[in-house]
Amino acid sequence: MAYVFGADIGGTTVKLGLFGSDENLIEKWEIPTRTENGGVQVVPDVAASILAKMKERGIAKEEVLGIGMGAPGAVDDDGYMSGGAVNLGWAPFNLKDAAEEATGGIPVIAANDANVAAYGEMWKGGGRGNSNVVAVTLGTGVGGGIIVGGRLLTGATGAGGEIGHIHIVDEETEVCGCGHCGCLEQYASATGVVRLARRRLAEDDKPSVLREGEVSAKTVFDAVKAGDAVAVEIAERFGYYLGKGLAAVANVVNPEIFVIGGGVSKAGEILLSFVEPNFQKYVFPPCRHARFSLAQLGNDAGIVGAAGMVFEKEKVNAG
Amino acid sequence: MAYVFGADIGGTTVKLGLFGSDENLIEKWEIPTRTENGGVQVVPDVAASILAKMKERGIAKEEVLGIGMGAPGAVDDDGYMSGGAVNLGWAPFNLKDAAEEATGGIPVIAANDANVAAYGEMWKGGGRGNSNVVAVTLGTGVGGGIIVGGRLLTGATGAGGEIGHIHIVDEETEVCGCGHCGCLEQYASATGVVRLARRRLAEDDKPSVLREGEVSAKTVFDAVKAGDAVAVEIAERFGYYLGKGLAAVANVVNPEIFVIGGGVSKAGEILLSFVEPNFQKYVFPPCRHARFSLAQLGNDAGIVGAAGMVFEKEKVNAG
Repeated sequence: MAYVFGADIGGTTVKLGLFGSDENLIEKWEIPTRTENGGVQVVPDVAASILAKMKERGIAKEEVLGIGMGAPGAVDDDGYMSGGAVNLGWAPFNLKDAAEEATGGIPVIAANDANVAAYGEMWKGGGRGNSNVVAVTLGTGVGGGIIVGGRLLTGATGAGGEIGHIHIVDEETEVCGCGHCGCLEQYASATGVVRLARRRLAEDDKPSVLREGEVSAKTVFDAVKAGDAVAVEIAERFGYYLGKGLAAVANVVNPEIFVIGGGVSKAGEILLSFVEPNFQKYVFPPCRHARFSLAQLGNDAGIVGAAGMVFEKEKVNAG
Repeated sequence: MAYVFGADIGGTTVKLGLFGSDENLIEKWEIPTRTENGGVQVVPDVAASILAKMKERGIAKEEVLGIGMGAPGAVDDDGYMSGGAVNLGWAPFNLKDAAEEATGGIPVIAANDANVAAYGEMWKGGGRGNSNVVAVTLGTGVGGGIIVGGRLLTGATGAGGEIGHIHIVDEETEVCGCGHCGCLEQYASATGVVRLARRRLAEDDKPSVLREGEVSAKTVFDAVKAGDAVAVEIAERFGYYLGKGLAAVANVVNPEIFVIGGGVSKAGEILLSFVEPNFQKYVFPPCRHARFSLAQLGNDAGIVGAAGMVFEKEKVNAG
C-alpha cells in the first residue's frame, strides 16, 4: 500500500489527514498548535503525530509517498518561509527541511495554506476538472490561491495569489492591515461587508432589519434573502468591488473557474448573483467565460490539497 | 548537430530565425505575410521557407528539434486558436497541427506572440536569470506575457497576461478597443500617452514645447528629458496609471522582475523612474521587491522566445 499524509497548520490547531493509494481520505484528526517559544514545538509535534499514526496502523516509512503541508505564511518552491509565520511565532526558516528531518526523512512538500486549500478545491472540490483555477477565500480577510496549468502559482517569494490587496478604491481613507488604503479586502471580506453595511446605514434612515441587532456578513445576506432593500444595496456594492477585482485577476491569469469559499460564501449561490454581473462588466472579453462556483471542501480543503500536491508530484515523476 | 527554428508571425512580415545546439542565433530572415484569402497561405509559406533553409544548409529533418511559433492571437496549450487571428484573417484553427502537417512532421510549439516575446526576454533578455517574469509591451496597445516558475502562463483560452485591459479608471468616458472604458491600455500605451498629453495641454495655457508640432510618446519623453514641466506632469500621470496597474499584477503573480518593452520604452530608464514610485505605493508589501528592467531583444524577442520554448521543452523531456 501507498499512503500520503496532509497537514494543515493553523494558529490554534493542526489538522491532519491520512490518505490511501486510491487518493481518498482514510482518517482525519487534529492536534493543538503550540505557538509558545517561537512555535519551536509545532513541526516536531506534527512529525510525532504522523509517526504515531504510522505505528498505530502498522505503516512502514517506505509505504509513505510523502507529506503535504500548508502553513500560514509565504512559502517558496523550496519550502523556505522568508517571512516566517506571524500567527505561529515562526521566524524565517525552511519548513520542508525541518519537517523532513523531524520525520526521519519522509519527503515533504510545503506551501502556503491558502494555496494548499486552493489546490484541494481544484483537485476534489468546487474547481474539479479544471487546471486553471482561482480560489478566493472571503473570511476575516480576502485570501487567494491560483492554479495555472495544474500547478500552484507560488511566485517569487511565495506571495502569489494574494489578491486581497489589489488596490481598488482611490478615495478610501481607512487603512488596511497591509498599510495601504483601498484594498479589495476592505470591501469583500467579512469585516469589509460589515464596513459597507455600516456606511450604507449611516447614509439615511431607510428602514431595514439591519438596524436592529448586530450586523455581520451573515445578517446582511440573510436580510438580502428576506428581500430587505437596504441589504440588497449593500450586497450590490460588495458585488461591485469583488466583481471588479476578480475581473482584474482574470485579465492576468485567464482562469476557467473561480471557486469562492470562506465564511462569507456560506450565503450560497445568491452571493455569486451579485458578483458575476460586475465581473462581466469589467473583464476583458476573451477572459469572460470564467465560471463561478462555491467551495465544497470546507475545513478539509487544506488536508486534501496538501495530500493532493504529493499525489500529483508522484504522477509527474512517474509519467 | 541539432537545430531549432523560431517563427514570429506578424501582420506584415514573418520573422524567422535558425538556432544551433549552443542555443545561439545562426541566421535570421523575413518573409512577407500573405493575409489575403483568410491568410490560408501563411502557414504553408512559413513551412516552405523553413524547409528551403534546411535544404540550403543541408540540414536533415532528424536534426531539427522543433519549430517554435508565435502568432497574433490567443493560442491554448494544444496550439488551438479559438479566436483565430484578426490581423491575419485567420478563422479558429489549430496552428500547431497545421504547421506540423505543412512541414512534414517537424514538432511545433505554438503560442501567442506577446507571450513568446516575453519568454524570449526571460530566456536571453531583460529578465534573464529569473523564472517569475512579467513582460509588458507598451506599443500601440499594452500587451503582456507572464512566466511563472519558468513556464508561460497561457490560461484557459490563451488570453493569460492580457494586462492591458485591467480596468483602472472608473470615470473614463472614451471607449477602449475592447469595448470597455478605463483600461490600462488607454493611459499607458503610445496612444494612451498622447491622450494624457492632449488632456493635460487642454487644461491651461502653461508653456510647453509640446504645444508646437505633433505630440507623440517620443516627443513627450524627449520633453521630459529637456526639463519641460508640463511633459513631466504628463509622465507622472502615465507613471501613476502604469504603476498602479502593475501593482495589481504583482499582487496576483508575485514576479521577480518586470521587463518593459515596446515603442514607449525607448524613452529608456527615465520611464521607469515615473513607474516604480507608484508601483511601490500600491503593491502588497510582500510583493514589493519586484524589480523593473527594460527589454533588450527588440524585434528579435519573438524568434528568440519561440526557439527558447523548444530548447526548454527538450531539457524538460531529457531531464
